[in-house]
Amino acid sequence: MMKVGTYLIKRLKELGIKHVFGVPGDFNMDILDFVEDEEGIEWIGGCNELNSGYAADGYARINKISALITTFGVGELSAINAIAGSFSEIVPVVHIVGTPSTKSQSEGAILHHTLGNGDFKIYKRMYEEITVAQTCLNQNNAKYEIDRVLRECYIKARPVYISLPFDVCHQEIDVATDLSEDLLSLSLPKNHHDVEYAAINQIVEIIRKANRVIVLVDAGTSRYNATNELLEFVEKTGLPFFTSPMGKGIISEDHPQFGGIYIGNVSESHIRSEVENADLIISVGAIKSDYNTGGFSYHVNQAKTIEFGHENVKVFFARYEDLSLKQILPKITSCLEDLHYNPQIQPPYQYRLLPEQIESKRIVQNWFWREISSKFLKPNDIIIADTGTSMFGLMDIKFPKGATFISQILYGSIGYSVGATLGAALAARNNQMKRRVILFVGDGSL
Amino acid sequence: MMKVGTYLIKRLKELGIKHVFGVPGDFNMDILDFVEDEEGIEWIGGCNELNSGYAADGYARINKISALITTFGVGELSAINAIAGSFSEIVPVVHIVGTPSTKSQSEGAILHHTLGNGDFKIYKRMYEEITVAQTCLNQNNAKYEIDRVLRECYIKARPVYISLPFDVCHQEIDVATDLSEDLLSLSLPKNHHDVEYAAINQIVEIIRKANRVIVLVDAGTSRYNATNELLEFVEKTGLPFFTSPMGKGIISEDHPQFGGIYIGNVSESHIRSEVENADLIISVGAIKSDYNTGGFSYHVNQAKTIEFGHENVKVFFARYEDLSLKQILPKITSCLEDLHYNPQIQPPYQYRLLPEQIESKRIVQNWFWREISSKFLKPNDIIIADTGTSMFGLMDIKFPKGATFISQILYGSIGYSVGATLGAALAARNNQMKRRVILFVGDGSL
Amino acid sequence: MMKVGTYLIKRLKELGIKHVFGVPGDFNMDILDFVEDEEGIEWIGGCNELNSGYAADGYARINKISALITTFGVGELSAINAIAGSFSEIVPVVHIVGTPSTKSQSEGAILHHTLGNGDFKIYKRMYEEITVAQTCLNQNNAKYEIDRVLRECYIKARPVYISLPFDVCHQEIDVATDLSEDLLSLSLPKNHHDVEYAAINQIVEIIRKANRVIVLVDAGTSRYNATNELLEFVEKTGLPFFTSPMGKGIISEDHPQFGGIYIGNVSESHIRSEVENADLIISVGAIKSDYNTGGFSYHVNQAKTIEFGHENVKVFFARYEDLSLKQILPKITSCLEDLHYNPQIQPPYQYRLLPEQIESKRIVQNWFWREISSKFLKPNDIIIADTGTSMFGLMDIKFPKGATFISQILYGSIGYSVGATLGAALAARNNQMKRRVILFVGDGSL
Amino acid sequence: MMKVGTYLIKRLKELGIKHVFGVPGDFNMDILDFVEDEEGIEWIGGCNELNSGYAADGYARINKISALITTFGVGELSAINAIAGSFSEIVPVVHIVGTPSTKSQSEGAILHHTLGNGDFKIYKRMYEEITVAQTCLNQNNAKYEIDRVLRECYIKARPVYISLPFDVCHQEIDVATDLSEDLLSLSLPKNHHDVEYAAINQIVEIIRKANRVIVLVDAGTSRYNATNELLEFVEKTGLPFFTSPMGKGIISEDHPQFGGIYIGNVSESHIRSEVENADLIISVGAIKSDYNTGGFSYHVNQAKTIEFGHENVKVFFARYEDLSLKQILPKITSCLEDLHYNPQIQPPYQYRLLPEQIESKRIVQNWFWREISSKFLKPNDIIIADTGTSMFGLMDIKFPKGATFISQILYGSIGYSVGATLGAALAARNNQMKRRVILFVGDGSL
Ligand SMILES: Cc1ncc(C[n+]2csc(CCOP(=O)(O)OP(=O)(O)O)c2C)c(N)n1
Ligand SMILES: Cc1ncc(C[n+]2csc(CCOP(=O)(O)OP(=O)(O)O)c2C)c(N)n1
Ligand SMILES: Cc1ncc(C[n+]2csc(CCOP(=O)(O)OP(=O)(O)O)c2C)c(N)n1
Ligand SMILES: Cc1ncc(C[n+]2csc(CCOP(=O)(O)OP(=O)(O)O)c2C)c(N)n1
Ligand SMILES: [Mg+2]
Ligand SMILES: [Mg+2]
Ligand SMILES: [Mg+2]
Ligand SMILES: [Mg+2]
Repeated sequence: MMKVGTYLIKRLKELGIKHVFGVPGDFNMDILDFVEDEEGIEWIGGCNELNSGYAADGYARINKISALITTFGVGELSAINAIAGSFSEIVPVVHIVGTPSTKSQSEGAILHHTLGNGDFKIYKRMYEEITVAQTCLNQNNAKYEIDRVLRECYIKARPVYISLPFDVCHQEIDVATDLSEDLLSLSLPKNHHDVEYAAINQIVEIIRKANRVIVLVDAGTSRYNATNELLEFVEKTGLPFFTSPMGKGIISEDHPQFGGIYIGNVSESHIRSEVENADLIISVGAIKSDYNTGGFSYHVNQAKTIEFGHENVKVFFARYEDLSLKQILPKITSCLEDLHYNPQIQPPYQYRLLPEQIESKRIVQNWFWREISSKFLKPNDIIIADTGTSMFGLMDIKFPKGATFISQILYGSIGYSVGATLGAALAARNNQMKRRVILFVGDGSL
Repeated sequence: MMKVGTYLIKRLKELGIKHVFGVPGDFNMDILDFVEDEEGIEWIGGCNELNSGYAADGYARINKISALITTFGVGELSAINAIAGSFSEIVPVVHIVGTPSTKSQSEGAILHHTLGNGDFKIYKRMYEEITVAQTCLNQNNAKYEIDRVLRECYIKARPVYISLPFDVCHQEIDVATDLSEDLLSLSLPKNHHDVEYAAINQIVEIIRKANRVIVLVDAGTSRYNATNELLEFVEKTGLPFFTSPMGKGIISEDHPQFGGIYIGNVSESHIRSEVENADLIISVGAIKSDYNTGGFSYHVNQAKTIEFGHENVKVFFARYEDLSLKQILPKITSCLEDLHYNPQIQPPYQYRLLPEQIESKRIVQNWFWREISSKFLKPNDIIIADTGTSMFGLMDIKFPKGATFISQILYGSIGYSVGATLGAALAARNNQMKRRVILFVGDGSL
Repeated sequence: MMKVGTYLIKRLKELGIKHVFGVPGDFNMDILDFVEDEEGIEWIGGCNELNSGYAADGYARINKISALITTFGVGELSAINAIAGSFSEIVPVVHIVGTPSTKSQSEGAILHHTLGNGDFKIYKRMYEEITVAQTCLNQNNAKYEIDRVLRECYIKARPVYISLPFDVCHQEIDVATDLSEDLLSLSLPKNHHDVEYAAINQIVEIIRKANRVIVLVDAGTSRYNATNELLEFVEKTGLPFFTSPMGKGIISEDHPQFGGIYIGNVSESHIRSEVENADLIISVGAIKSDYNTGGFSYHVNQAKTIEFGHENVKVFFARYEDLSLKQILPKITSCLEDLHYNPQIQPPYQYRLLPEQIESKRIVQNWFWREISSKFLKPNDIIIADTGTSMFGLMDIKFPKGATFISQILYGSIGYSVGATLGAALAARNNQMKRRVILFVGDGSL
Repeated sequence: MMKVGTYLIKRLKELGIKHVFGVPGDFNMDILDFVEDEEGIEWIGGCNELNSGYAADGYARINKISALITTFGVGELSAINAIAGSFSEIVPVVHIVGTPSTKSQSEGAILHHTLGNGDFKIYKRMYEEITVAQTCLNQNNAKYEIDRVLRECYIKARPVYISLPFDVCHQEIDVATDLSEDLLSLSLPKNHHDVEYAAINQIVEIIRKANRVIVLVDAGTSRYNATNELLEFVEKTGLPFFTSPMGKGIISEDHPQFGGIYIGNVSESHIRSEVENADLIISVGAIKSDYNTGGFSYHVNQAKTIEFGHENVKVFFARYEDLSLKQILPKITSCLEDLHYNPQIQPPYQYRLLPEQIESKRIVQNWFWREISSKFLKPNDIIIADTGTSMFGLMDIKFPKGATFISQILYGSIGYSVGATLGAALAARNNQMKRRVILFVGDGSL
C-alpha cells in the first residue's frame, strides 16, 4: 500500500525529475507536502505560475520531461499560456493541479477560485485543448491513470494534465512497495514490421540512386528523442546536413558535414542553392511554421523529399502511417553503412557574420553578435533567446560544439525565456557537465 | 460607411470607456491603430497581459465596463486568468483579441502563436467557458455582433470575447455616420408585468407583517447596478442593513442604518444575533461563496428570507423567474413609503478594532489597522486589497463615507490588486471627485 | 455469483415485467436465451422493431414499465421512433440492445449493421437524445449500471437505453443469490421538508380562501403514478375536476365530480366558462402541448393557478423546486379533510354527443360514436386510438367506469396504436380483471 | 425571384430525380404542394416512412441519387434506419424534412411530434450521425445551402439532411429564372497534379513489372460512379478480375475476363488460389466488412496490393491522399494501353451450382437456384435480395449480362428489399431498357 501522493511523486522521480516547479495554494498544499517528504526531488517555488510554467518548459527541454504543480483555478489559469506553449513547441510537462476535495466538488460548493457556479470541470475542459492526456484522480483510478498520463506525456512529448483533489493524495492504493519492480513502460508503440520493411526498402533504394542528397534537420528530431539516431545516420552515410531555425544546434554546428541554416528565401544564397537544387531531401522532424520556413518561403520540392515524422514517414507524396522516426532511422542507417556519400557541397559552412568583417565604435548588432560568437560562447553552453531581436540575431552566428538552443520559434510568447532560463539552469545541474546557461532577452520581455 | 475598427472603438466610447488596456502584438496592431486614431479614448499599454487584464477589471469596477485588447494566442492566454476572475466576480470586461487574417485562418496556416495544428478555434473555445458571449467578426456580421456582445457584456455584467482578424478592422460596413442616431440599447429585458405584480404584492405584505426585518447587502447589488435602488429602498423604509464581506462599502459604512458585516460564525456576536434572530431577511444580490459566508456558516434561514437576484426573486422557498432586482426594487420601495420602520437594533455599529483599545510599540496587526482606519483613510477613497492578510484585515475596520472596496473575495487570485489599482486609478480620473486609490497588498502578491 | 444476463432479466421481473418485446438478431440472441431460460417472463417476438417498440409502450401504460430487446444498429434504429414517442409521452420503456462483442467493438471491426467506419457509439449517441439514462454494460459496471438505469426509468417515467455486448451476458457478477434480499429502490427522492412545509401552508391557505375552485387533471398525473393520490384529493375535498384530452379517463368519467373535458376554445362552452371563470385552478400533471390545449387556446390564468408537476410545484408565478406531486398531494389532502367544498357547478357532465340526438341511415360520425359510446364500450375497457379521426372522435363521448385511454396526443405518430394494442392486451392479462382492449384506428395508420 | 420550394424541387429534377418518396404530414404538406406543381417530377406516397426510405435507397442505386420527404419527428425518425442504411452502403439520398414554422421553432412551442421540451434540434442532431451534410433552411441561406448539401450528397455519395420549416417554402429568393444558366457543379475536387503524377508513375511501373496481376472489384467502384472507368481499365489492359460479394455484377459476370467471386475462405478453392497467389492485386473500391470478406478471412497481402479508393490510393503500405479513383484510373489505363496482359487464369469462371449437377423432386436450395439462374433470369435484370438465405443463395449463381445486384451486404437490415424494389422499379422506368426488377426475400423480411 502506498498513498496516492507518494506514488505520484515517486513516478515523477522515476522519470528523472529532480525539481518540481509551481506556486502553493490552498488546494495543492497536500501534494506539496509529499514533494517535501520525498528524498531526491526538490520544490522550486515561483513568484507566479506563468514563470513556473516557463521554468518547467525550460527544464523539460534539457531533462526530457518536467513537472509543474499549481492550485485550482487561479493557479492553473495563470500557467495556461506556458502549457499551451509547451504543447505547441512539443515539450513534455506534467501539470498537476491540486483541486478541492472530492466532497466539495461533488456537492458543487461555491468555493473560492471557482466561477461561482458549482462547475468544477471548466478548467479541465480548457486544458483538454492544450494537453495530450488529462485525468481526474480518485482512489480507484489513481494507479492506472497516473501511469497512463505520464506515459502519454513522455511518448507524445507534450503536456498532460492531472487534477488531484487534495483528499485523494492521502488515500492508500495497492502498488508494489518497491516501484523498481513495476517500472513505467516508456517505449514507443513498435513500428509494424511489414510497413516498416516496405518503407525501408523504398527509401534505401531512393537514397542510393540519388545524386545530390541533403539532410534537413528540424526540431522534431530532438523533441522526439531521435537526436542520436539522426547523428549516426548522418555520420555513417556521410550526407551533408542543414538545419531549420528550430533545428539549430541539434547537431553541433562545427560538425564537418554541417551546411548551414536553411530558412527559405531568408537564407544565405549558397545555402538556398544547396538545398533547393538537391535532387533528394531527407527531412527529419520538420515543423513547417511561418518563422521556421522563412515565412513559408521554403522551397523544398515535395516530389524530391522523404519526410521522417514522429508517427509517419512520407516518401514524396505517399505516406506510411504509424512509423516512428526513432525506430526506423537506425535500420535505414544500417542498410546504408557502405554508402560513403561524397557530398558535392563544401563544408565547413561560413557564417554571415564573419568576425573579421566588422569594426565598430558603437554597439551595433553585427559587432555585438560577433563578439558573442567569437569571445563569449563556449562549448556545451545552453543558449536561450526570447522572441524578438535576440532570437533573430542568434540565427546568424555559429554555436560552439555541444551548444543547445532554447527558444519558442513557433509559439513565440515573450517573457518565456526568463522562466525557461531558471528551469534549464536547474536541469543542467542534473549532469556533470557544468553547462552554462546564457539568456538573450529584450527589455520588453523581461 | 465606417470601418469595422472605427465602429468598434466608437461603440466602446459610447459605453463610457476612455482607456483601453492591453499589450501589442503582430495580430492586434491594426486595431490598436484605430484606438490611437480615435479622440477621447486612450491606449494603456501594459508589460504583460495578465496585469492588463487585472487593470481592465479594476477599471470596470469603477467605470461600469472596460476593454482589453490582446494579441492572438500568447496574449489572450496570458490574460485568461484575469478574465476568469472578472467572470467569477461579475465584472464586465470586453476582451478584444486581434487574430490572424481571415485568409490564414481559413487555410489553417501554421502561424506563430498557434499550436502548430492549423486550428484557430482553440482559444475561443477556452474563452467560451469564462465569457457570456463570444463572436468572431467578419464584414457581414460585424455591426450585429459587436452590438450583441457589448450589450450582453453590459446587461449580464460579465466578460465577453471578440475575435477580430486584423484584415477585418479595415473593412467598411454600412452604419449611421453619427452613431448618436443609433445608440446601443442597454436596458434590461423588462420584468413580466403579471409576475412582477404578484411578487410585489406578496413581498410587500410579508414585509408589513414582519417584526424584526433586516436587509443583507451583497456584491450583486453593485455588480448589477442596483446600488441606488437599494439605497433608496433602505432609506425610505428605514430598515437596518448589514453587509457581507463582498458587500462591504456598497452603502456607506457611516450610514446611520448600517449594522455591521455579517460573515456567519466569524461575525461579531451581536451582529450574528441581529441577523440570525431577525424574523425577515431581505437579501440583495447574494453570493454564497465560502469566504463570503464565513465558510458556509451563514445561518440565514431560507424560510425567513426574501432573495433579490439579477434574474429572479425568491420568496422563502419559491422562485419568481425573470425578475431583475434593479427593476422590482423601486416598485417595492414605493409601496412601502409609509413604513417608517423602527429598527430594534442600535446603530451605529461598533467596530471590533476600536481605536482606543490598542497601544503598541511594535507594528502589530491591530495597531496597524487602527492607524489606517483612524488616520489614513479619507472619504471617497477607493480601497483595494489583495487576497490574504490585507483583505481579512480590512474587514475589521470602518470605511469612510463614500469609500469603494475592490477585492477578489470569490475568485481570490493573488496579484490581482496591483493591476486593478492601475485600472481603478485611471477610471477614477473620469470623474471630478479626485478620489484616492489605496492598495493593500502582501509581499507575495506583488 | 450470477451471470449478467440472468441478473438483468431478474431485475426486469422484479419490476413486474412479464413480457418482453422485440425482434431477434445476431447480436441479441445471447440475451434472448436468458429471457427464454427465466421462468415467469415471456418473449414476444415481433415482425419488426417499430411495432415491438409500440407494443412495449402500450404495455408500459398498463403495467407501469416495460422492456424491449433489439439488435444492434438495424434493430434499434428501426425502433427509435417508438422510443422517442415513449420519451415524449412519458412512458417508461427499458430498451436493451444486443451489441457486438466487447472485442470487436474495441477493435473497431467493420461488422454488418455498422456504418462501416468502426464507430460503435453512434447509435448510443442518438439514443442519448431520447432517453433519460444510458449505459454500456461490462462485467465491472453491470450491477451498478443496471440498477441505476432501471431506477431512472421508473422514477423519471421515461425510456432508458442499455447497450449489452453479447459476451457480457455470460460474464459472472457478484450479487446476492436471492435478489429479494437486495431489491431495487424505486422511491422518489424525498421532498425537502422545509420547502414542502412552506408550499403546503401556502397552498392550503389559498384553497381555503378561494370561492370557485376547480381541478384540472392532465396526463402527468397517471404518468408519474399519482392517480390514487389525486383521486383521494378530489374526493376528500369535494372539488370538481375537469380533464385535458391527455387526462381523459384518468379518473372515471362517471365520477360525480367530473365536469368535462377542457380543450381551450375547442371545449363546450359551459365547460370553458366553468374553467375559465374559476378563481382558483389546481392543475395537476399539465402537458401544455398544442393538441392538449386546443391549439394553445387554453385560457387558464397563471395568476389563479397552482400547478403540481413531477418535480416542482408552482403557486401562481412562483416555483418551489424539487417537490414531487405524488408526495405533496396526500399531505395537502390531509390538511383539507374538513373542506367539504360545495361546488357551484352541476355535474354530471353532459356530453356533446347525446344518444338521443342522433338518428341516421348512413354511418355518420355522430351516429357511429354514439353507438360506440352507448352500446359497445363496457366498464374497465382499455380504449386505444390512433392519431386522426379516431382520437378526435373519442374526445366527445363518455368513457365507462374504469376505462383507460391510450393515445399519442403529444407525439402523434400514426401506426402507434396497432402495436400498442398488442402490448396493452398482454399487460391486461397480468391482472384478474379480464379487461377488453379496443382499438380505434384509421385505414392510413394500420 | 423564385420560391424556396420551387428552387429545391427544380434542383432535384436537375439531378435527374423524377420520383420523390415519402409520407405526408402536417409539416411537410407545403413542400409536397411544390412537388405536385412541378412538371416532370412525381410524388410516390408510401404507407410508412421506413419503406419510403428503403424505396429512395433502391431508386438511388439505379438512378444515382434520390429524394425522400418526411414530416418532422415522427416521420423522419420512422425513416432513420433506412437513411442509416444508405449512409452505410454509400447511397446518396436527399432527405428533406418538413418542420414547424420558423416562429414556432424560435419560440420553443410544445407542438405535436416534439418531445415536449421545446427543443427543435434533437432530430437534426441524430441525423448528423448518419448524413454527410445537414442544413436548416431559411430565406437567407436557402440558395447557398441547398446547393451545398445537394453537391455533398452527390460527391460523397451518401445521404444529406435538409430541415425545411413550412413557411420557408413560400419565401422568395433571388436566383436565375432559368436554372440551366446556373447549373449545380457536381464535379469531384480535382486530383492534385503532382501527387497524381507521382502515383501514376509508381503504379504503372509496378503493374508492368508484375507477373500475376488480378483486379478485385468491390462496391466502391459503382458507388463512386467509376464503373465505366474500371471497365475500360480492365478491357484495355486485359487483366482478369474477381469481385467481392458487394461487387457482384458491377461488371457483367459473362465478361470473358471475369474470374469469380472472392469471399476469403468461403470462396471456391480455385478462386482463392488465383487471388491469393497473385503477385499483384489491384483492389478497386474495397469495403472490408465481415460478410464482404468472408468473415475477415480475406487473404489479400497488403504488400502486394494497390488499393484505389474514393479519396485516396494506397500503394502497398503507403497512401497518396486526396486522389479519387474515378480521375486517376483513366490516366493509368492510357499509360497501359500497350500492356496486352495475358492472364494465366482461365476464364470463363465456372459456378458452384452447375445446372447439370442437380436433379430433385423437392424444392431444395440447389435446384431452386439452378432453375432461377438457368431459366428465369434475363439480361439486364435488376436482382434484389434481402439479408438471409436470399442474399447468400444468389452468391452462387451466375448473373446474366447487364444484371444489377441490389442488397445490403454491409448494413443488413431485413425488410429493406421490399421498399428497395419499389424504388428500383420506378428508377428503371427512367430509361428505355424495360429492365425487369426481381426480388428475392424471406418470409421474415416481408
Ligand atoms: C505574451 C506576448 N505578448 C505579446 C507579444 C507580441 N510581441 C512580440 S515581440 C514583442 C516586443 C518584444 O520586445 P523586446 O523583448 O524588447 O524585444 P526586442 O526589442 O529585443 O526585439 C511583443 C510585444 C508576444 N509575442 N507575446
Ligand atoms: C494566482 C494565485 N496563486 C496562488 C494562490 C494561493 N495563495 C493564496 S494567499 C497566497 C500568499 C499570499 O502572500 P502575500 O501576498 O504576502 O499575502 P499575506 O502574506 O499578506 O497574507 C497564495 C500563494 C492564489 N490565491 N492565487
Ligand atoms: C409516422 C407518421 N407519419 C405521418 C404522420 C402524419 N399524419 C397524421 S394523420 C395521417 C393520416 C392518418 O390517416 P388515417 O389513419 O386513415 O386516419 P383518419 O383518416 O381516420 O383520420 C398522417 C399521414 C404521422 N402523424 N405520423
Ligand atoms: C431490422 C432487422 N432486424 C433484425 C435482423 C436480424 N435478422 C437477420 S436475418 C433475420 C431473419 C430473416 O428471416 P427471413 O427473411 O425469412 O430470411 P431467410 O429465412 O430466408 O433467411 C433476422 C431477424 C435484421 N437483420 N434486421
Ligand atoms: Mg526591446
Ligand atoms: Mg506575505
Ligand atoms: Mg383514413
Ligand atoms: Mg425465412
